Amino acid sequence: MLGLGLIGGSIMRAAAGAGREVFGYNRSVEGAHGARADGYDSSLDLNETLDRAASSDALIVLAVPMPALPNMLAHIAASAPDCPLTDVTSVKKAVLDEVVAADLLPRFVGGHPMTGTAHSGWTAGHGGLFNRAPWVVSVDDHVDPQVWSMVTQLALDCGAHVVPARSDEHDAAAAAISHLPHLLAEALAITAAEVPLAFALAAGSFRDATRVAGTAPDLVRAMCEANTSQLTPATDRIIELLSRARQSLAHNGSVADLVDEGHAARTRYESFPRSDIVTVVVGADGWRQQLAAAGRAGGVIRSALPTLDSRR
Amino acid sequence: MLGLGLIGGSIMRAAAGAGREVFGYNRSVEGAHGARADGYDSSLDLNETLDRAASSDALIVLAVPMPALPNMLAHIAASAPDCPLTDVTSVKKAVLDEVVAADLLPRFVGGHPMTGTAHSGWTAGHGGLFNRAPWVVSVDDHVDPQVWSMVTQLALDCGAHVVPARSDEHDAAAAAISHLPHLLAEALAITAAEVPLAFALAAGSFRDATRVAGTAPDLVRAMCEANTSQLTPATDRIIELLSRARQSLAHNGSVADLVDEGHAARTRYESFPRSDIVTVVVGADGWRQQLAAAGRAGGVIRSALPTLDSRR
Repeated sequence: MLGLGLIGGSIMRAAAGAGREVFGYNRSVEGAHGARADGYDSSLDLNETLDRAASSDALIVLAVPMPALPNMLAHIAASAPDCPLTDVTSVKKAVLDEVVAADLLPRFVGGHPMTGTAHSGWTAGHGGLFNRAPWVVSVDDHVDPQVWSMVTQLALDCGAHVVPARSDEHDAAAAAISHLPHLLAEALAITAAEVPLAFALAAGSFRDATRVAGTAPDLVRAMCEANTSQLTPATDRIIELLSRARQSLAHNGSVADLVDEGHAARTRYESFPRSDIVTVVVGADGWRQQLAAAGRAGGVIRSALPTLDSRR
Repeated sequence: MLGLGLIGGSIMRAAAGAGREVFGYNRSVEGAHGARADGYDSSLDLNETLDRAASSDALIVLAVPMPALPNMLAHIAASAPDCPLTDVTSVKKAVLDEVVAADLLPRFVGGHPMTGTAHSGWTAGHGGLFNRAPWVVSVDDHVDPQVWSMVTQLALDCGAHVVPARSDEHDAAAAAISHLPHLLAEALAITAAEVPLAFALAAGSFRDATRVAGTAPDLVRAMCEANTSQLTPATDRIIELLSRARQSLAHNGSVADLVDEGHAARTRYESFPRSDIVTVVVGADGWRQQLAAAGRAGGVIRSALPTLDSRR
């Protein structure tokens, strides 16, 4: 575990709780000593930790913020370039680019556990954080089946449900379901703040609609700005929908098109089918495409899939 | 009570529970008989109900949907034109226009209890619905102090906190905190539905952000379309904010301006001061302006205000 904050620290606890051997590094004294005080194997020495990973062929989990990633990857390339490698970052294409730049692609399989709390740091974490949460494991074209199975097993050991997805599709989905809602909440808070009586009357639904605008600006910017190429077209699309509704309202007194279509979309979401992926054989011809299609269709992995080796 | 649906039926229960004499009319057999079966004084005969109101100088509460309002007002103008009159509709200017058209302005004071549930009809109501909920009572220029105090007392008897507000300011606030969030939720649901993997990954925050898109389209349209003059500029404003953020993101890779301003606005909302209005004397010089200003500043009325008469 490289990084023992909310996510990294929670993975350490969950993986250890599942009986796995796990050791970690944290840059800050608070994180490393906090983990050690709680009985976990943690260090302040990055080189020592990477040497240990290299000698035991450990699965390395990058759980550092995006800005710290290039430097961390450089250290891994120098000390433990052959270890299987994953990450837990909320954007996948930008991470993939950094991994390619560090020449670490062959053993890398990206990941994104889709959970969290409003708090951060080792003390905010807990072993149950991933329980039944979706955890995306990437099935990009380069992905090695063995490493993919290792990363998937880690997610399953942490109690998560694995959703297989391509990095670009993950990022497009994250733009629509997470980053764009952040921008809407910010814009709505600003719009309401300009209306004299608005805050006086605002209650439940406004509080819910703007809740994520309470997130620290640095975190919101980091997410959104690392996903510019997907968030820009998503923002264009919602501006187009709102502009069309505005014209219809102002000129025909009707928002029927937007409201009917929105209600239908929301209804489709409510009844979106969830199913278990059980039949894909990892490593078999077309396995990555099959998993990407199954994930798109609402499939999740709740127990380890067969691999080509295990079927022989 | 004219109309014994969710709101009207809940007022009937709450007012009766507070020891008030209350009788009601409902157009549908289900509503009127449902209320009677539960022990409430209800009728299917509108003329009889209005005659009874006129002979007892009862406070008439309009709790019918907006489309039913003109016809109901015509009946009141014919049978009980001198009764004090209020309503519980979610837009205030459109109601005011209908009241003026029916020549019922002198004894009218608009109201809007800001609460509800996803359900409707007599059986959905309950006497605790207004407990500590904001209930706007209008302080437009025409408002009569005696009728105003009667309407305010009804709201207080139902357990609500009264927020005094002008009808136009109420509608501008409702556009920003309620109607615009509905349009955003609809547009977000549509945007996400077009992204293949989005529904597969969507969880808590997306579900929250699109929850109100699950509201019946007719209800959303009725609210939004009755408030066109306020909702149009609010929609323009949010489109402007989103367009500016989109340009900044695409060209500078930054959403800093939107996120910083949005976070600051949301923080101001969290710390918006709430206070009790206790010193305004109803009927004294400038009392309507004083109450409008106090409501704008976050003031609420939790017990009856002094009136000019009661101070003599």
